[in-house]
Amino acid sequence: MNFSIIIFVLGNILKVEGLLLSVPFVISLIYKEGMNNTYGFLIVMAILFVIGVLTTIKKPEKKSMQPKDGFVIVSLSWLLLSFFGALPFVLSGEIPSLADAFFETASGFTTTGSSILRNVEGLSHSMLFWRSFTHLIGGMGVLVFALAILPSTGLDSVHVMKAEVPGPVFGKLVAKMRLTARILYGIYLVMTAVLILFLLAGGMNLFDATLHAFGTAGTGGFGVKNTSVAYYNSPYIETVIGIGMILFGVNFNLYYMIMVGDIKKIFESEELKIYIKIIFWAILAIFINVGIKSGFSMKLLRDAFFQVSSIITTTGFSTVDYNEWPVFSHIILLVLMFIGGCAGSTAGGLKVSRIGILMKTSYAQLKKVVQPNRVVSIRFDGKVLDSNIITSITNYFVVYMLVFVVLLLLVAFDSPNFSTAFSAVSATYNNIGPGFDVVGPAGNFSDFSDFTKIVLSFSMIFGRLEIYPMLILIGSIFNNSDLK
Amino acid sequence: MNFSIIIFVLGNILKVEGLLLSVPFVISLIYKEGMNNTYGFLIVMAILFVIGVLTTIKKPEKKSMQPKDGFVIVSLSWLLLSFFGALPFVLSGEIPSLADAFFETASGFTTTGSSILRNVEGLSHSMLFWRSFTHLIGGMGVLVFALAILPSTGLDSVHVMKAEVPGPVFGKLVAKMRLTARILYGIYLVMTAVLILFLLAGGMNLFDATLHAFGTAGTGGFGVKNTSVAYYNSPYIETVIGIGMILFGVNFNLYYMIMVGDIKKIFESEELKIYIKIIFWAILAIFINVGIKSGFSMKLLRDAFFQVSSIITTTGFSTVDYNEWPVFSHIILLVLMFIGGCAGSTAGGLKVSRIGILMKTSYAQLKKVVQPNRVVSIRFDGKVLDSNIITSITNYFVVYMLVFVVLLLLVAFDSPNFSTAFSAVSATYNNIGPGFDVVGPAGNFSDFSDFTKIVLSFSMIFGRLEIYPMLILIGSIFNNSDLK
Repeated sequence: MNFSIIIFVLGNILKVEGLLLSVPFVISLIYKEGMNNTYGFLIVMAILFVIGVLTTIKKPEKKSMQPKDGFVIVSLSWLLLSFFGALPFVLSGEIPSLADAFFETASGFTTTGSSILRNVEGLSHSMLFWRSFTHLIGGMGVLVFALAILPSTGLDSVHVMKAEVPGPVFGKLVAKMRLTARILYGIYLVMTAVLILFLLAGGMNLFDATLHAFGTAGTGGFGVKNTSVAYYNSPYIETVIGIGMILFGVNFNLYYMIMVGDIKKIFESEELKIYIKIIFWAILAIFINVGIKSGFSMKLLRDAFFQVSSIITTTGFSTVDYNEWPVFSHIILLVLMFIGGCAGSTAGGLKVSRIGILMKTSYAQLKKVVQPNRVVSIRFDGKVLDSNIITSITNYFVVYMLVFVVLLLLVAFDSPNFSTAFSAVSATYNNIGPGFDVVGPAGNFSDFSDFTKIVLSFSMIFGRLEIYPMLILIGSIFNNSDLK
Repeated sequence: MNFSIIIFVLGNILKVEGLLLSVPFVISLIYKEGMNNTYGFLIVMAILFVIGVLTTIKKPEKKSMQPKDGFVIVSLSWLLLSFFGALPFVLSGEIPSLADAFFETASGFTTTGSSILRNVEGLSHSMLFWRSFTHLIGGMGVLVFALAILPSTGLDSVHVMKAEVPGPVFGKLVAKMRLTARILYGIYLVMTAVLILFLLAGGMNLFDATLHAFGTAGTGGFGVKNTSVAYYNSPYIETVIGIGMILFGVNFNLYYMIMVGDIKKIFESEELKIYIKIIFWAILAIFINVGIKSGFSMKLLRDAFFQVSSIITTTGFSTVDYNEWPVFSHIILLVLMFIGGCAGSTAGGLKVSRIGILMKTSYAQLKKVVQPNRVVSIRFDGKVLDSNIITSITNYFVVYMLVFVVLLLLVAFDSPNFSTAFSAVSATYNNIGPGFDVVGPAGNFSDFSDFTKIVLSFSMIFGRLEIYPMLILIGSIFNNSDLK
């Protein structure tokens, strides 16, 4: 491993975090909050700048990086950002436990939205802002990770569009990656700004509108009210956020296509078609299922739309306590958790394109069973997929499920029942936020032990970084010679 | 499809079922049971012989079979055996509902052991015998299916041992298949007879000993008492059945090796080593987990041993209501349900060899991620696996999980909670028997609707036949042109 470059890059990332902390610092001044908040931010910024400067004084001699170095950087950066980002919460005394604050911050940066807070409304403005701001930052980080870094490592199996989209040129060169990143950031921030305007138009104040836009853009789901979006009781706001979430769950390559005027590509995207179909059928199924039990109403249709949008995009806002829906609707939502949004979006989960390809692979397997000698090809987006891509996707699914089982076993130790354990891991691993039962929309993650909170924080980072970076980091720590 | 040969083979299978019904018929005479029982068996035997004779009078002209014909025969035979095998229960009035009787019989033939009976002890001797006898028959059917039919269709991915074991020659020729079947039947029946003797030595009466041996041999799990094996409260009997289940969960090829004196092969079997390791660690984990909560005791060690043995071999006998164990132990058992026994045994689940290969594939994938150009080979039983075998196993896993999700959604409609739905499907799909919560060892499947009982019966047959045959049957019914 090239330690000097790993430390250099991480040092720079910490400097950026220090810089970003200046925003909630200013907020704490504007709202004239207590010393603990204002000085808390200052102290953490100082720590980050000192560490950042010390680790980046000397430029690394060797500039060459192996894929492994990249994975270690990615996983350590999410871990370190979460650790240092947690300190202001602890110093302010608003989230006194470090494990709790780490959980909350990891949940923010991974755009998960799971919370240990029993009373969100008890937080000060600066802390609420920093909490939601991590969603915005995490969302940007993920976009660049998924659309610029992953493809350059050869791990681009899920980004099948890449080859045929004449979009941002993905290359190994830093310059090209920077360009890609800038274009993506531009699209992302403009969409966020538009969303803020729409929410302001619905009567939200600027603070709430900004924070909800952050939560939507990062498909994170942190809100500012104990009852999440249900608080506003506004069909307009629900519709704006509902559509917003769906839009942020789309592959950002497609927005680039719109920018360059190639609107036709939108209609050709197979992933987008599957995504829309799943959303439609899930809403219908839940509407009928809950309707038969509790009566049909426009409110139910709105709730079904909002929750499906919120869960498939792995955001996690809620307008209703879906815990009270029948088991069938629970399982629909649970399946949506694992599907997740489109590849190349801020959403988590397995991703719609992978699910589509897994289903086609299953069907192709059946054909092969019937005629063992038949050559069966699998098409996606109109092109025949290379067998290496298919293998890497099926292998990803296997690894995904195996890691899920390990996390489930670790979380089972202090879970009151099976569905709490199962949904807590599902909701963190797929970066949703709330699960079912104790960790449902009306509950939170506060009752778990510190050990479980750390495990679930890792679960979020595992899922957010598509499993491999964290596994490779763990392998490196145990000095596994196979992973060198 | 070659309909004439499909009908011909099925007709012969029904004749065999008619013949096998003569055993419980005799039992009903010995115990001087009422007319309903005795005539019930006679009527069903008559129906089976008439259908059997009518469909086999004319030998099929075309003798050539496609793999598809084989799959359709296999899935239809399990469905028809279950349907006609259910009739004596209905005619006797002891299980008046056809859906219930079909569920119970499918559960028997698939060696699952899930039951809709609230009071097993209320059944007459002949019905109890027939119920357990289906386990013995189903176990034999599965052995031949897994070790003689599957390999000849080219679907032998999981039977990796085949190539290097100089065992029964598996070929496409009927003569060789018959020889294989006879050797397997011989081993199976001798082991069952030995088990009966051991149980008699423990003080069980002949009837109970025979039926428990059937349940153990088929890794089925139907008992004759409401509290299953806990009724006997005998460490000796628990140990005999516990070890018996583990032995019937081993690949039967290995017993052939012992027969021909090649004992060395036993110690070389990687699947066997993994199987034993999983059993050891699962017992230890449950013993510690439950012990910390409720106190350590020899009884707990026995229960942990018995339940691990019962669940991993997908038998489903119980000596304790493990519903009352902590969530962690539940999840251990749930993981064991999906692992299942060894390939080429009477056990269900994914099979230990598949799990082993899936784990190795995951590890190989990580190596590839770190060094994309590295060639990574996967070894099992000391030999490098062909990439086609690995692909067919990962694809099997994908199909397995997708079908599981579909079944889960169908069962969710009338499940009281998530863990009941999840464990009901897990327990039937993997051919275990009892699940958790409402369908736990102290409960049963009687509260489900007829629709759900039929779905769960299909779940059992899906799992028992390794998914593909049933999918292909369904594809044929809808006249899917891809599956021709």
